[in-house]
Amino acid sequence: MTAPHRLKALLAPASIAVVGASDTPGKVGTSIFRNLLEHRFSGSFYPVNQKSSTIAGQLAYRSLEDLPEKIELAVLCTPAQSIPSLVEQCGRLEIPAALVITAGFREVGSDGIAIQQELDLARSKFPKLRILGPNCLGLIHPESRMSASFAAGMPQTGSLAFLSQSGALCTAFLDWSIREGIGFSNFVSLGNQLDVGFSDLLDYLADDPATTAAILYIESITKPNEFITAAQKFTARKPLIAYKAGRFPASAQAAASHTGALAGIDEVYQAVMERCGIVRVYDMESMVQCAELLSQQPNTTLTPIGQRIAIVTNAGGPGVMASDTLIDQGGRLTELSAETIKSLDECLPANWSKANPVDVIGDATPERFSQALRIVLADPNVDTVLAILTPQAMTNPTQTAERLVQIPIPPNKRVVASWMGGGSMQSGIEALQASGIRNFETPEQAIRGLMRLIDYSTIRHRIKESEPVLTPPTDVNAILDRNRFADTLGLRNATKTAPILVTEVDSKLLLNLYRIPTPRIQIATTAEQAVTLANSFGYPVVLKVYSPEITHKTDVGGVLLSVHDAEQVALGFDTIYTNVRNKKPNARIDGVTVQPMVRLSNAVELIVGSKKDPVFGPVVLVGLGGVTAELFQDKALELPPVTPTRLHRMLKSLRSWPLLDGFRGRPKANIDALADLMEKYSLLVQEQDWIQESDLNPVLVNDVQAIVLDARFIG
Amino acid sequence: MTAPHRLKALLAPASIAVVGASDTPGKVGTSIFRNLLEHRFSGSFYPVNQKSSTIAGQLAYRSLEDLPEKIELAVLCTPAQSIPSLVEQCGRLEIPAALVITAGFREVGSDGIAIQQELDLARSKFPKLRILGPNCLGLIHPESRMSASFAAGMPQTGSLAFLSQSGALCTAFLDWSIREGIGFSNFVSLGNQLDVGFSDLLDYLADDPATTAAILYIESITKPNEFITAAQKFTARKPLIAYKAGRFPASAQAAASHTGALAGIDEVYQAVMERCGIVRVYDMESMVQCAELLSQQPNTTLTPIGQRIAIVTNAGGPGVMASDTLIDQGGRLTELSAETIKSLDECLPANWSKANPVDVIGDATPERFSQALRIVLADPNVDTVLAILTPQAMTNPTQTAERLVQIPIPPNKRVVASWMGGGSMQSGIEALQASGIRNFETPEQAIRGLMRLIDYSTIRHRIKESEPVLTPPTDVNAILDRNRFADTLGLRNATKTAPILVTEVDSKLLLNLYRIPTPRIQIATTAEQAVTLANSFGYPVVLKVYSPEITHKTDVGGVLLSVHDAEQVALGFDTIYTNVRNKKPNARIDGVTVQPMVRLSNAVELIVGSKKDPVFGPVVLVGLGGVTAELFQDKALELPPVTPTRLHRMLKSLRSWPLLDGFRGRPKANIDALADLMEKYSLLVQEQDWIQESDLNPVLVNDVQAIVLDARFIG
Repeated sequence: MTAPHRLKALLAPASIAVVGASDTPGKVGTSIFRNLLEHRFSGSFYPVNQKSSTIAGQLAYRSLEDLPEKIELAVLCTPAQSIPSLVEQCGRLEIPAALVITAGFREVGSDGIAIQQELDLARSKFPKLRILGPNCLGLIHPESRMSASFAAGMPQTGSLAFLSQSGALCTAFLDWSIREGIGFSNFVSLGNQLDVGFSDLLDYLADDPATTAAILYIESITKPNEFITAAQKFTARKPLIAYKAGRFPASAQAAASHTGALAGIDEVYQAVMERCGIVRVYDMESMVQCAELLSQQPNTTLTPIGQRIAIVTNAGGPGVMASDTLIDQGGRLTELSAETIKSLDECLPANWSKANPVDVIGDATPERFSQALRIVLADPNVDTVLAILTPQAMTNPTQTAERLVQIPIPPNKRVVASWMGGGSMQSGIEALQASGIRNFETPEQAIRGLMRLIDYSTIRHRIKESEPVLTPPTDVNAILDRNRFADTLGLRNATKTAPILVTEVDSKLLLNLYRIPTPRIQIATTAEQAVTLANSFGYPVVLKVYSPEITHKTDVGGVLLSVHDAEQVALGFDTIYTNVRNKKPNARIDGVTVQPMVRLSNAVELIVGSKKDPVFGPVVLVGLGGVTAELFQDKALELPPVTPTRLHRMLKSLRSWPLLDGFRGRPKANIDALADLMEKYSLLVQEQDWIQESDLNPVLVNDVQAIVLDARFIG
Repeated sequence: MTAPHRLKALLAPASIAVVGASDTPGKVGTSIFRNLLEHRFSGSFYPVNQKSSTIAGQLAYRSLEDLPEKIELAVLCTPAQSIPSLVEQCGRLEIPAALVITAGFREVGSDGIAIQQELDLARSKFPKLRILGPNCLGLIHPESRMSASFAAGMPQTGSLAFLSQSGALCTAFLDWSIREGIGFSNFVSLGNQLDVGFSDLLDYLADDPATTAAILYIESITKPNEFITAAQKFTARKPLIAYKAGRFPASAQAAASHTGALAGIDEVYQAVMERCGIVRVYDMESMVQCAELLSQQPNTTLTPIGQRIAIVTNAGGPGVMASDTLIDQGGRLTELSAETIKSLDECLPANWSKANPVDVIGDATPERFSQALRIVLADPNVDTVLAILTPQAMTNPTQTAERLVQIPIPPNKRVVASWMGGGSMQSGIEALQASGIRNFETPEQAIRGLMRLIDYSTIRHRIKESEPVLTPPTDVNAILDRNRFADTLGLRNATKTAPILVTEVDSKLLLNLYRIPTPRIQIATTAEQAVTLANSFGYPVVLKVYSPEITHKTDVGGVLLSVHDAEQVALGFDTIYTNVRNKKPNARIDGVTVQPMVRLSNAVELIVGSKKDPVFGPVVLVGLGGVTAELFQDKALELPPVTPTRLHRMLKSLRSWPLLDGFRGRPKANIDALADLMEKYSLLVQEQDWIQESDLNPVLVNDVQAIVLDARFIG
């Protein structure tokens, strides 16, 4: 037997002490102790209170040191100032886990930050002690009937885990879940994540056999690498649904002001979620829909959820509404087999729809409805059936539901329902839910929930992609050169006050160090040198002013394209000096760069770039270039390393992908060459950790090669 | 006093006869008569049955002729075969309105179509008789407690009208509305729209003072001009919300199979709704949300609904979720005035959010919450407040609701709520709803509903746009020329079996007839003629093969651009003949066209086109041209006439609009020239009714002019 996971003592403890347990109504310590008592926590639990000798009729202890047994979890809900020393005490007593409910730390500003630092110091002395919180609602573990929280109510035991950075959302979600009969393995309010965060919890829950899926409410992620690793471990096995609060700068600001947390750019979060295999949802309702479906059939979590959806309905209109939503969400109506159509012909009136959605006609009896559903469910082309019932003249919603729940559901298939209406549907809905068939208020809600689970099936395989990652060269000189580059230019200088813009010549030198194709470039300080260089490159060439003080070279007449012969090079050299001196009399000019003019036939112009995210580090972007494309913002983002598989996925997600893929008889672009370039570039942005931003613009790719025409690195 | 509207007898009759009233359980005639009886219809009503002398204890009549008074509405629910003669009888008796509940007409195939034709014939004899149905659920008019339908239940009297082409949706919506306490002026199931359709109903309801808003469920529109006129009349006064079923070809097919109606292309419906000022919703839930908000404060319908939304919440997380949705839907968080911030500072704990959303902190008492709400509601920058409450430790949802409903709501402002949770929120929610404050399960739902009403405020002014429309020329010769064009080419030939492609020369001739700028073009049959023409146009010129049998001229070497002098024109003439004869030996060649080569500096390339929709007739499209743009599908659709104001709106809706508007220092395009071109073109496609499709591609526009380089008309 393997040792229990280090978080077991926190999430499913055998014994608990509540420090700050109280009898005073309205106090948090009162609610928490009563929750343990009233829900009949199956383990042992003790009140700790310095002043009272009994709490809620139970013998109370003065301190943790006085407890009759060595407990697993200390719940702390005394004032913030007392928490650091209590944590030290936990550490000394070798209590494995502490849950700090108390608020008043980082989230309240400078005073709180000071106490949180003190708390962090206390914690650091006892690395084995795991702490959840501070500033959280607490924990619920229905299986042991443990509610170490001040939330009201105990949900059913189930296999879904819910982890939330918002305590309020926990309470609202819990309240709903109790009403809707959704069961949980663990229900966790994370608070300020001083120690235990999403990554620790996901790592534990991935291994926890009692958990088959999880839903997250995320405001910010603090340990990105650990998060990605843990989430990938989880999603390789079980569905993970997440809502990320603060998609837009304005709402992110609202998020930041309430948790004091640093928010990343939403697109980066999107890339992170995709990398992790997380299904992202955009509202509370979708979280609830997913929770309902995930809690419906726990044993299907290891089975891919089939995409082939059929609809059985007693009304055309709602069938169309469901179809509209299905297609809008990227799904499709499955085609029924000829045999199914034949069987339905035998039991349905002549004017039935003869296709999916199966409209069994408004006057359908419970028998007709359930017979049609049974036939459709048996169709080998069908994974999931959505049953829609509207209250029409002949409809008996309750009897239809009662018939429906008697139909045996084959393994790997599922039935969901939408009994549409108010009072007349109520008892039918109850009959459905009681036998595990989830009912949704509208067919569209059912479809949206199903599509999220199908999304998981679709993306899960990505997590398992294993692909060799480009190995950095073992050549010691190459490594030295790469290190030397930044050092020479002082790019790792910690005291720099302004961003450092690397010149075009140095930028291309850096590309060369990573063997990224780019035209040769040299600096000429005289017209003669320029001619010599141009002769050695071959014509035509490009001449550009070389000055650390000029960013927009074209604007000052500092660029000449397609220079065709030696005479024009000499002339051009002088022209550039004249132009620049006229437009910017005081700018330092260090010479003129000479490079061969690259002309690729049938080339597509791309933009490649990178940006260092404050949370997740460098992210890499690829998009279509040119003025029009800029307006369309046709781009894709990835975390490095950008392997060939990932690059393919990025490119295929662009609306302009056909341009690279032989659109209208164009030759197909050499994606392998581009993949090689991108893999090297993503290695570059990872190794050169001084890069804040970079642009390769344009990158040209045609059927033969991919090449960077211009590059800009900012340190 | 004006005469009552001709539909009053149908929608709010004083007296009713139910032909087919019955006592047999399960029959439609039984349900309908019992509905009138049990809901205590305030008018007089009579059962008509050939066999029974009493129905439900009331004296029954053998036929309509035997009734003791001249009734206003005959409800017919006898078998389909009997309906045509009953309708004739209604006509003879001068009964003003008939409601045909009976199904079994067009929607069941050939037999039904025959009976429907018979019915239509009967109807045509009595033009004053207005008929609703057949194949519908019936009508409800809560004010007179009339349910001339077989649906169960009677909703409250209210000011919202609900019109649906799906009877099943009526029943479901009705059931919900009764549970949620939504009141209606009229509730109408339209059925097959043999006579009365959306347009008649909207025309009536626009004038009806009891109706302040309407919601439509549309499957298809049959009388497009009447619909647009009536909808515009309605939306100029009151909000109109519509769901259109069958957005995608696959789901439209499902819609068509169930109603037997012809579905238009969804983009055309979109353009029609925009033209009408209708707010479009995409699911059942949005219909319900809008219904809840519209039924909340009937007196606000004539007031624009303000866009400035503030959020008061006892929890940060849900506030962020609401903000995310608000911004996603195109709204924004209003900025609170300094005075409001100051007042809030005085009554809230120090760690309140200091901005909108106003987070009053989780431990808020009912008093603190309602005080904050009162202050925010009074802010002159605030139109609407969303109050969010989550069940936290100190929260008292019921008392908070009770305090909240005591706050007087200033005119033109509104409060909506989201008490988030299950059982613990129930009595608070009831208190809110009882006093007219709508509660939504999630804050996002509240925001979505609000944004739809704000959409109405935003678009309503469009309806009132009055703009001179281009007058066709009164010059008789010009009109004759325009008519002659189609006749000469036989384009109005009804017996044509295949589409007719108009040649480039004729297409440009047609453009000339409407004074739409396009390069001159002439046909040369010898090299000498070509040279003479080119000399007269000036160089460079374009040469193209002229053949009715060659569509893709470039593919056969039939196009030469930038031909610079006489010698090259002569050479080019022969080259084209040689090329085409090699590639297509059997194609008839009628010559070579010569036209000046147009070069516009800084031009943007657009595509303009038209298509004849089977329901709505010609629609006009404008979009960005070029290969990349085709991938991005950056286009806008309008119904003619395309006035300058509409063109501006179309162009501004393009993502590539900045290219025309001086992006990055480009000169701004001459939109007036383009508007002139488009107005003439839209006149062209309206007058030339033989046009099935047309393409002006490319249309070039720069800072000076707009010109059509190539055109293609298909008859």
